[in-house]
Amino acid sequence: MFKFHMPTKLFVGSNCLRENKSQLILGKRAMIVTGKTSGARSGALDEVIEILKSEKIPYLVYDKIENNPEINDMARAGLVASEFSADFLIGIGGGSPLDATKAIAVYSQNPPGVTGEFKLYDIFTGEYPNKPLPMVAIPTTAGTGSETTPYSILTLHKEQNKRSFSSPDTFFKVAFLDGKYTLNLPLQIARNTAVDAMCHLLEGYTNKKSSDGSDYIALEGLKIIGKHLDRLRSGEMNTEACTELLWASTLGGIVISQTGTTVVHSMGYMLTYHKDIPHGMANGFLLYEYLKRQAEACPEKKNAYLKALGIDTLEELRNYLEEILPFEMEIDKDTIEEWSKTAIMAKNVASCPFPITREDEINMYTRSLFR
Amino acid sequence: MFKFHMPTKLFVGSNCLRENKSQLILGKRAMIVTGKTSGARSGALDEVIEILKSEKIPYLVYDKIENNPEINDMARAGLVASEFSADFLIGIGGGSPLDATKAIAVYSQNPPGVTGEFKLYDIFTGEYPNKPLPMVAIPTTAGTGSETTPYSILTLHKEQNKRSFSSPDTFFKVAFLDGKYTLNLPLQIARNTAVDAMCHLLEGYTNKKSSDGSDYIALEGLKIIGKHLDRLRSGEMNTEACTELLWASTLGGIVISQTGTTVVHSMGYMLTYHKDIPHGMANGFLLYEYLKRQAEACPEKKNAYLKALGIDTLEELRNYLEEILPFEMEIDKDTIEEWSKTAIMAKNVASCPFPITREDEINMYTRSLFR
Repeated sequence: MFKFHMPTKLFVGSNCLRENKSQLILGKRAMIVTGKTSGARSGALDEVIEILKSEKIPYLVYDKIENNPEINDMARAGLVASEFSADFLIGIGGGSPLDATKAIAVYSQNPPGVTGEFKLYDIFTGEYPNKPLPMVAIPTTAGTGSETTPYSILTLHKEQNKRSFSSPDTFFKVAFLDGKYTLNLPLQIARNTAVDAMCHLLEGYTNKKSSDGSDYIALEGLKIIGKHLDRLRSGEMNTEACTELLWASTLGGIVISQTGTTVVHSMGYMLTYHKDIPHGMANGFLLYEYLKRQAEACPEKKNAYLKALGIDTLEELRNYLEEILPFEMEIDKDTIEEWSKTAIMAKNVASCPFPITREDEINMYTRSLFR
Repeated sequence: MFKFHMPTKLFVGSNCLRENKSQLILGKRAMIVTGKTSGARSGALDEVIEILKSEKIPYLVYDKIENNPEINDMARAGLVASEFSADFLIGIGGGSPLDATKAIAVYSQNPPGVTGEFKLYDIFTGEYPNKPLPMVAIPTTAGTGSETTPYSILTLHKEQNKRSFSSPDTFFKVAFLDGKYTLNLPLQIARNTAVDAMCHLLEGYTNKKSSDGSDYIALEGLKIIGKHLDRLRSGEMNTEACTELLWASTLGGIVISQTGTTVVHSMGYMLTYHKDIPHGMANGFLLYEYLKRQAEACPEKKNAYLKALGIDTLEELRNYLEEILPFEMEIDKDTIEEWSKTAIMAKNVASCPFPITREDEINMYTRSLFR
């Protein structure tokens, strides 16, 4: 039995935004949600503003989104959106601005504390008294897949961790995928985000909740990533390759919408929260030790995903990841012990394809991070 | 540039309905739309009723849908739904009941003539003052793909033809695809509908509006059909094969949602309207002459689709179709001349991958139907 649900309307390819302008306009007043640099560097922000102006849609640029959006900041941004009476949101950026857009869509319609009914943490219930604002996504990195998932991941200082929410109403209505927006990414960001997409595809493919349908999409995504591994090493990108990598990352989003992720992600959050390691890179550090255990538990899938990637052995994949993801991190045993307490509580531990204890996580952290 | 939009939530596989009962319930009062035999024979009707009873949802079984639903009948069925105050519809059956469900969803909320604003033929505008009712699909044939398209095809006696409508609100919200519902189909219906799915995949793949994204889905669907060609000849079906064929037909629906069909479909409507030839069979009669011309115009795609089907030559495909689709039809030159006047007016003539005139259509009809 498998399930498929991905209601986002996708426009993919060169100049897809300019050629489908009317699809950008989901309401009468727009708030653009982006980071300090991503919207501008990609060229997407200028294009969006030009279209909104020509369509006479009042807009507000909210470009304060930082890496790993924090929950209180999101509630405040929600107030900005409702003060401006925005009736739709346009998210431009990587995972952080896109995830932030989802949180702002919820909070602007359900301001915590204002009615006294909806509280800050109620965002994690996935049930909202008022429907979140409709949203458009313009990804400027090829990794998150956030444009085709209902998930958003927020940073919680109180819990010293990251936590995800989702609901059927936190899918984007429309997404524009154009490689020209990711072409100017710094190479290390392109690599980190591609590794994130690879992790989504591999964690989805090996997931307990995987199905024939999701497997099939996962392998197609891995073939695309495999095609561009050399390019990600050398840095010789072009618009077409960038669009293909965006599509692979979108397929990754479709896969994890069905399957969820695994402990690679939940363990990775600790590295990002405590050591500021970029999300995709953090996953990349942990991937090999996960795949090694997965292959012991159910070996038949290993050959299929390695073939799709065009890689011969797991060790070759490890060497490739070590080459493109520079490891500069200090770590000690006590910290790992501490992290494992939080990481083993994550929901996705249950969808890991092999039984896993806190001891196992300590072991995986140790093997991955003591180099 | 390509577009992807398929908002229907799909549940695929053995017992997917029983295992996801709550997903069937889209409102407080249900009208079940089905044909005289399809709902009962498939076993789906009993299962649906059992669930509605256990959930205490009042329901009305409307089992009057005939092959090739006629527009006035649909408006009347819409009145029945609104009299019953149905707030959601459950379509069970092949293409006719599923297409009928879409029309009833529109008419029940927009009764022609009642307010004086909405008229019978306004259904073809794709814009409705009131939102159509939400709908669930349970296909009992593997061919139409109607469960994943926004399209519905109605018979118009006034125009002696069939005509399609669609809108973003005529996608099903949920569809349950389970091979056990198609397992008991008479073999000829299984063959006709599989040929319909094959036509969707081939017409989508060779379509002017095809894209990398739709091509890729089309080839995957054709591989599944190819895998079961022998089975469709011998009649040795089983539940798993039936689920796979349902999935192929669903992929066909996803493809034509992006690309539309070609002249195979619009020319085929004439055979169905005037000679009562089942829809898939009618397409099957015309497919070879279309593919021959397509291969002359852009040969590179031919090898890819033949390979996916596991067939060596176009002639082999023609022989296979002649073998599984018995041809028993009397036709004369004048009739063909007459049909071509209507067929050449169809919208999908424009998405045919080669230029086509009325003379060409006469020629294609002649070569296909004079045997």
